[in-house]
Amino acid sequence: MKIAILGMGNIGGGVADELIRDKAEITAASGQPVDIKYILDLRDFPGHPLENKVVHSIDTIINDPEVELVAETMGGSHPAREYTLAALCAGKHVVTSNKEVVSNFGDEFLAEAEAHGVFYLFEASVGGGIPLIRPITDSLASEQINAVNGIVNGTTNYILTKVSEGVPFEDALAEAQRLGYAERDPSADVDAIDSQRKITILAALASGKLHDPSRVRAESIRGVTPDTISLASEFGGTIKLIAHAAPTEDGMVDIFAAPCFVPHSSPLAYISDVYNGILLDCSRSGTLMFFGQGAGKYPTAGSIIADIVAVASGTARRCRPFKKDGDDLLLPYTEHVCRHFVTVPTVFSAEVTKFSEPEFCVTGGDTTAFILPPCRHGDVERLTKENSQISVYRII
Amino acid sequence: MKIAILGMGNIGGGVADELIRDKAEITAASGQPVDIKYILDLRDFPGHPLENKVVHSIDTIINDPEVELVAETMGGSHPAREYTLAALCAGKHVVTSNKEVVSNFGDEFLAEAEAHGVFYLFEASVGGGIPLIRPITDSLASEQINAVNGIVNGTTNYILTKVSEGVPFEDALAEAQRLGYAERDPSADVDAIDSQRKITILAALASGKLHDPSRVRAESIRGVTPDTISLASEFGGTIKLIAHAAPTEDGMVDIFAAPCFVPHSSPLAYISDVYNGILLDCSRSGTLMFFGQGAGKYPTAGSIIADIVAVASGTARRCRPFKKDGDDLLLPYTEHVCRHFVTVPTVFSAEVTKFSEPEFCVTGGDTTAFILPPCRHGDVERLTKENSQISVYRII
Repeated sequence: MKIAILGMGNIGGGVADELIRDKAEITAASGQPVDIKYILDLRDFPGHPLENKVVHSIDTIINDPEVELVAETMGGSHPAREYTLAALCAGKHVVTSNKEVVSNFGDEFLAEAEAHGVFYLFEASVGGGIPLIRPITDSLASEQINAVNGIVNGTTNYILTKVSEGVPFEDALAEAQRLGYAERDPSADVDAIDSQRKITILAALASGKLHDPSRVRAESIRGVTPDTISLASEFGGTIKLIAHAAPTEDGMVDIFAAPCFVPHSSPLAYISDVYNGILLDCSRSGTLMFFGQGAGKYPTAGSIIADIVAVASGTARRCRPFKKDGDDLLLPYTEHVCRHFVTVPTVFSAEVTKFSEPEFCVTGGDTTAFILPPCRHGDVERLTKENSQISVYRII
Repeated sequence: MKIAILGMGNIGGGVADELIRDKAEITAASGQPVDIKYILDLRDFPGHPLENKVVHSIDTIINDPEVELVAETMGGSHPAREYTLAALCAGKHVVTSNKEVVSNFGDEFLAEAEAHGVFYLFEASVGGGIPLIRPITDSLASEQINAVNGIVNGTTNYILTKVSEGVPFEDALAEAQRLGYAERDPSADVDAIDSQRKITILAALASGKLHDPSRVRAESIRGVTPDTISLASEFGGTIKLIAHAAPTEDGMVDIFAAPCFVPHSSPLAYISDVYNGILLDCSRSGTLMFFGQGAGKYPTAGSIIADIVAVASGTARRCRPFKKDGDDLLLPYTEHVCRHFVTVPTVFSAEVTKFSEPEFCVTGGDTTAFILPPCRHGDVERLTKENSQISVYRII
């Protein structure tokens, strides 16, 4: 099978490296050799073993009937969307690591893929190297997924791990940047945009409805301090950036990505550093968690290669179908009802206690923390609007 | 597709229940209805909705060409082996939850299945409801699995969780029996026979070699006390029954199931109650963990149904092949080199310190615990033979 790689960045380069290095294993698993015919990039790569495969026009790839599969590792919505549609319409399979394009246009790609008798696969778009979308597709095919709770962003999990060790947020971010975990502009990670896209994808697989990702609530981790996490631990929990999707009792769907209080009774509380973990509540198999490296060149390349091997070996299967639908059923984040963990400078404690009678209270240094009984998130959030030194976290 | 269920016990009954209850979902995922034509059991089930499906002779099933798949949920080696071979030779797919028969004869079944153009699938045999063997087969098809470390027995994990909370072993076992987690004769669980079988299966998938399970080292958890785990926690770890398989540097393979010291840096340290977690070190995807309910009627039935759906929908794939081989390469358990956690009545401490200079030492009550630098397990085990009040645990 001849393939093309779109974008020779970190992930695309990893795919190219692995297809060369593990050629024997990949051929054996695929039942045929998988050869890179083209690499699309703006740059040339003089001296690279694949330098003569580099092309600068997508048309070369689209118009070559020998290319059966395109691995899109460019990222971004455009031109990834246009290139993906062109490849699918030309009867080529597409596999991707690009959560932005999947969360925005995945429904279009699935429809085009089906119309042209090819596959659109995106294992690498959520959970990096973790086998997740294929087990959902195959092993859980006849089960309902009733809830998803995940740590799906390795960068912020690394930062929060450091913060939990006493490192202030800004220093933890700088360290993550130094290690190459965070971009120079870290907003997509720390402001939960990346998690927002990934939970949109997982929610679509669980419910069949692809929501507009920009309408999914995303909250930054920038306000989380060592004190916050230290006080959370007094209540038997920690703070993690949680991507959540679940139906509500009255037929709505609650989806968000936000820093939450995670009790130590949840396996998500123990996921540290750049690891990811995705917890699924399934109708028959119960609680499952898929854990592994959520990012990184080779793990993510591994998931792309798994999708390539699936196509080449004839064992690929269409994922659970989803369509753009149901944005009117998205629960406004203010309406989410849950218990809350609240931190407040001790001098302002009364602002919390007059709002609600806390279940638990602990004071550490100048800060006091409370566990509040269930209430609408919008109501408790009003406390933070009246006093920006008050922080509130949903308890999952 | 017409199927037969062999054995209407806990798991077989769960499969029957789910095939009836979730008929619509299972038909949709399978692309065809899946109907129970026969249930083989010694008993009758008067009043049961499937009572008219019950037969008492395997020949009825084997000789009926309409039966395309047999779900073997009897357990035990015999007659499960003979019935499985008969079904495969009659051109019927077989799926099973029976780790004993897979670990002893899985190689034969795979060969017969291939010879007769049918599938032999055993997702439910390891990790209960956790999708594990299919991700290993599919998602990780082109990767090497370099090591397996798992908590694969829910009963003992429940007991050790209770022991870690201060409950003595005998009381924790009685509680597990009361809750139906442990059998009246708990030996297969607490003496690690069940874990021994499961790690034999996982090692075969990783290495291609099916070892004689009875030659895989299995060590009981009966000696683990609340004190032991309390002292382990002083060193930043806990005690878990770990099923381990990995090649050694000199071409041997080290496989065992034994209570081990698990540092809190491992996600396995946080798996509590009846949950299972299987950690795989993969060549491309890095460290992955599959977590979920390792036992129980419906989760385990869920894995059997996933295998049935795989066959019915035409997406089943042959697992990584393995053959009986390499028992001469099994590392004798005494030769395993690692660090050890040792507990000893304080009055006998000198017996440990004269054996090896400890890296760390802590005394709690009348007991002292040590972390010893790497040495052969057989050497440190000699301490326990000379003084039965000394306990030694490998550190993983």
